Amino acid sequence: MNENQPNTRTPDAGRRSERSRRAIYDAALALVSELGYARTTIEGIAARAGVGKQTIYRWWPSKAAVLLDAFLDLGEQATETAPVIPDTGDLAADLKLVLRATVDELTNPAFEAPTRALTAEGVVDPALCALYVERLLNPSLQLYVDRLRSAEAAGELRPGIDHRVAVELFVGPLTHRWMLRTLPLTHEYADTLVDYALGGLSPRA
Amino acid sequence: MNENQPNTRTPDAGRRSERSRRAIYDAALALVSELGYARTTIEGIAARAGVGKQTIYRWWPSKAAVLLDAFLDLGEQATETAPVIPDTGDLAADLKLVLRATVDELTNPAFEAPTRALTAEGVVDPALCALYVERLLNPSLQLYVDRLRSAEAAGELRPGIDHRVAVELFVGPLTHRWMLRTLPLTHEYADTLVDYALGGLSPRA
Repeated sequence: MNENQPNTRTPDAGRRSERSRRAIYDAALALVSELGYARTTIEGIAARAGVGKQTIYRWWPSKAAVLLDAFLDLGEQATETAPVIPDTGDLAADLKLVLRATVDELTNPAFEAPTRALTAEGVVDPALCALYVERLLNPSLQLYVDRLRSAEAAGELRPGIDHRVAVELFVGPLTHRWMLRTLPLTHEYADTLVDYALGGLSPRA
Repeated sequence: MNENQPNTRTPDAGRRSERSRRAIYDAALALVSELGYARTTIEGIAARAGVGKQTIYRWWPSKAAVLLDAFLDLGEQATETAPVIPDTGDLAADLKLVLRATVDELTNPAFEAPTRALTAEGVVDPALCALYVERLLNPSLQLYVDRLRSAEAAGELRPGIDHRVAVELFVGPLTHRWMLRTLPLTHEYADTLVDYALGGLSPRA
């Protein structure tokens, strides 16, 4: 280590920071699940995490920023165990794999409660929603767009399809069913969406 | 008139009741748009409508019940001016017509603010959501199911398609784009959804 560096980044301090950050994320996700977005406060998160609220204000400018980072972190943990979209050369199989994993994530209680709380707030709060879309949703949708582009190159997609709109045929219905709890969100449903969207509802010649 | 009937249903009393009911609906929709669901109260609705809160409690058991009736009424007003799903024998044209009308409704400020407030609450409140789905959403989705059934009989739909799932290919993406404000909600988008869902994303032979 360079002895001119300040001592706050010794391994011990780094571990303490990492522990605090983790405690803050856990507290933020627990509180927003229990209380909803509006009643979750920086003070409440600090108290539950066992840190001073200045620690939170030093790292994040707002409640929305802490919560979005906590969500990003939750998503990254999921990505370590869940597949990104593979490219096996079979578009239908690859989409079914990732949509089934999305079903599992959306119905996992650890994800569902905080995701519902953030989504509900985003429906009525355009600024929070824009942050959510930019930081969480769009990077995830881009993975689908990339996979569809590769499918088009392989002749598995009709030429001229707008990939960004096409992605919505898969994630739109899944999100609709989850948000409004209309009918069960199952692997079979995910598979059917892929078959219908790729094959089309009209009769094939 | 039967002289044994109580006098509360004379024409004048009926008109007064109708005026009160209309004032209560207007107040409920205005308040939920301005304050959100949680901060809208029966007392607030009564004050804004210029009626006693006992008038509201006499007609509705809860805040959720008043708000859902106000929404139903708003929907019925819209239905008088907007088309139900026609059956001209051209499924694509008929779906485009109704989805374009839905785009117009969702982007109409008179509908958008209260619909967002109710939807946001439904995302985190399963009981309210179930009422919303049963009373508002399912009857509307059934119109699509009926139209798809007639299309199947006319040979315009692949046999064996689950109509209820197929409907979600149209309304799911539309709702997703509206709720999350990802990209502009336009007539062109509605048309593209119909073309993609009916024609399919895979190449046609």
